[in-house]
Amino acid sequence: MHIDQNKIKSFERRYRANFINSLGGFKSVVLVGTKSTKHHENLSVVSSLFHIGADPALCGFVIRPNEETENTLGNIVSGRRYTLNHIHEGIYRQAHQCSARYPAGESEFAATGLHPEYLPGFDAPFVAESHIKIGCELVQKTDIELNGTFLIIGKIVQVLLPDNSIQADGFVDLEHAGTMTCSGLDSYHHPQKGIRLSYAKTDQPIHEL
Amino acid sequence: MHIDQNKIKSFERRYRANFINSLGGFKSVVLVGTKSTKHHENLSVVSSLFHIGADPALCGFVIRPNEETENTLGNIVSGRRYTLNHIHEGIYRQAHQCSARYPAGESEFAATGLHPEYLPGFDAPFVAESHIKIGCELVQKTDIELNGTFLIIGKIVQVLLPDNSIQADGFVDLEHAGTMTCSGLDSYHHPQKGIRLSYAKTDQPIHEL
Repeated sequence: MHIDQNKIKSFERRYRANFINSLGGFKSVVLVGTKSTKHHENLSVVSSLFHIGADPALCGFVIRPNEETENTLGNIVSGRRYTLNHIHEGIYRQAHQCSARYPAGESEFAATGLHPEYLPGFDAPFVAESHIKIGCELVQKTDIELNGTFLIIGKIVQVLLPDNSIQADGFVDLEHAGTMTCSGLDSYHHPQKGIRLSYAKTDQPIHEL
Repeated sequence: MHIDQNKIKSFERRYRANFINSLGGFKSVVLVGTKSTKHHENLSVVSSLFHIGADPALCGFVIRPNEETENTLGNIVSGRRYTLNHIHEGIYRQAHQCSARYPAGESEFAATGLHPEYLPGFDAPFVAESHIKIGCELVQKTDIELNGTFLIIGKIVQVLLPDNSIQADGFVDLEHAGTMTCSGLDSYHHPQKGIRLSYAKTDQPIHEL
């Protein structure tokens, strides 16, 4: 089945959103935790998280056009700190509920029953119920002029994760931690146990680790 | 278990790469197909693909510091067109092998036994064996000065996918297509059947679709 750009353009708006959002494959899905200058806590669902580099440890995500008010974008720009919290079976419904449009200042923690958790000296809320949690400092906000979205790049400065989830070579076992993945705008999935493959070289076959 | 930025900094280089690469959750993993000005075909593995917008249909990925020669970066900049090909059980070992450092001009298609496939008027190779394939036109290359990487943003102009993989509302069933996800640098996973949740509203509970 072949679909070209004219066909994509002709799709009804919601249909196109579902189609394009699911086309890129399975995605990381996290809750982004922030706090406003008025000390209101906020959670939002982000499924565009991507790896940028390991040294310095950097990751990015895309955030939609929005006024910089008491919301994820505004809070990241004003507070410079934010958290990324993995989603597992026990909280994925509450996590999805955080994508509803609550009024500014109304906490998604209170609305969904998730609990904020803090590390000393780091003024952004983690999700207590999450198993893998990352604290970031904003290092760059880039405008994507093509569609008015913003690219948020952060440095990873805090990590909270379960004991025994790191393997001998630094690999974090996400399946052990119950981390889910998503596709499209609303589909949540459990990956099955993964198969690790050896570092690829041109002169020898790869093998399972 | 708490790991802060000083601890991350202290990790051995390869350990840190495994740790940070797996920390962000499950990722989209695709083969990027390009062709050089000398008409050599190239494939590389990318696991940083992310959604930017549906109208226009845009997606991005990060590419490592590199000279713009006969490689993925050079070919995208010179040819402006590239393909993103989903990875499934039948080809994930060949796909992983494409991450080996073949000399410029040596085709990963030939080295791995994958086959190039073309659409009329679109001069970048798709992977014939892949089930979901996307053709993109480069719209923006942004330098990420923090670590010398590049952000490649493309417009989705071609899509090839199996019949019956699009649901009534535009959602593409990736599990039906056998699309895999990855974690870290080398772990490949099959997601189980997903659960779709309804559009979240502040005044009503979500339900399964």
